[in-house]
Amino acid sequence: MTTDSSTIKVDAELRASVEQFYAHHMQLLDAGRIPEWASFFTEDGTFAVDSHPEPARGRGQITAGATRTVEQLRGQGIARRHWLGMVDIAPADDTTVRVRSYALVFQITEADGAAVRSSTTCEDELVRAGDSWLIRARTVRQDRPA
Amino acid sequence: MTTDSSTIKVDAELRASVEQFYAHHMQLLDAGRIPEWASFFTEDGTFAVDSHPEPARGRGQITAGATRTVEQLRGQGIARRHWLGMVDIAPADDTTVRVRSYALVFQITEADGAAVRSSTTCEDELVRAGDSWLIRARTVRQDRPA
Amino acid sequence: MTTDSSTIKVDAELRASVEQFYAHHMQLLDAGRIPEWASFFTEDGTFAVDSHPEPARGRGQITAGATRTVEQLRGQGIARRHWLGMVDIAPADDTTVRVRSYALVFQITEADGAAVRSSTTCEDELVRAGDSWLIRARTVRQDRPA
Repeated sequence: MTTDSSTIKVDAELRASVEQFYAHHMQLLDAGRIPEWASFFTEDGTFAVDSHPEPARGRGQITAGATRTVEQLRGQGIARRHWLGMVDIAPADDTTVRVRSYALVFQITEADGAAVRSSTTCEDELVRAGDSWLIRARTVRQDRPA
Repeated sequence: MTTDSSTIKVDAELRASVEQFYAHHMQLLDAGRIPEWASFFTEDGTFAVDSHPEPARGRGQITAGATRTVEQLRGQGIARRHWLGMVDIAPADDTTVRVRSYALVFQITEADGAAVRSSTTCEDELVRAGDSWLIRARTVRQDRPA
Repeated sequence: MTTDSSTIKVDAELRASVEQFYAHHMQLLDAGRIPEWASFFTEDGTFAVDSHPEPARGRGQITAGATRTVEQLRGQGIARRHWLGMVDIAPADDTTVRVRSYALVFQITEADGAAVRSSTTCEDELVRAGDSWLIRARTVRQDRPA
């Protein structure tokens, strides 16, 4: 194997807590519970999406951006479901992990039912906060042909 | 964080056993092995789907309903694959957990290949039974715009 | 339950290591990092796909086949994302596990964006190698109506 085994050996507790964190966090977003969702970023957390020119910086900007999106989708009669999968966890130090995952967005409308909306790759820097995790930096990229 | 940390801290053993339970259980359903699939509900288990006026109550009704669905799909040349994801586990007491997950149904036909069929949310009350879990109450809701 | 409980009780460490293995392995494939991807098969590993008349045997054949596919997809302007889910793990002995999973392939093109490409079932025999796993035998079958 040419890959460092540290990317493979993952503590079961660590994996369980990261998977639980993502499940809970994505459901908050899709339910439109934005203040709760945003509370899982650090105060100075960043959220970069490659379709936006600048990352959102800090909980205030992150909350504002997500609130606008939620309101637009409601106005258009669109529900979304974010699925995170293929969660590749690399511990960085005692309190930080780097995670590279796939994120699929499914979209539900009255007219079309459920459909794939987009396929993205999500890179997170997570920091321990008590029994949970906070996102210090998130970068989401649309998947594109090479 | 405004969310109770108990929804975040999840025992690794618990999470592994719930994930394994769902993987095994969904594969039994999609393989049409209904008596085995139904054996993972409690004797008095309930299965409510929001498109049906009444929940199925007890293993007998659950088995009968699922058997009808399997026969209809076979008659129509349809295979299905149920994916459960974003599994948010909240321990209720020593023997019970509440789980809220996303469930996607993919449908495969000769004519159309594989396609998204529906996006739903699944709420389960699971009870410990030896090394595994039984479903005491399942509620499935079609995802819809708010 | 008519199912052997050994298919249900899964060690948390085992499950975490298998999930991490798959996440990392699938991302290597989709990134076109074929030599690294192939290094997670045993030297004499086999890879059978039911649309091919013969399995690929050994890392050399597996690498050659995957390299051709990657080059074809690049030439056609296609990116793919492989999702493995509903991972049903059955320990075979101290160093071997059998895993039966669902595998979805999503395809991304400039013209069509992201779409479901195929739904398959993946059966793996995995062997322990240090802190990770190697695939000794993989069998992928297209999902079809019964």
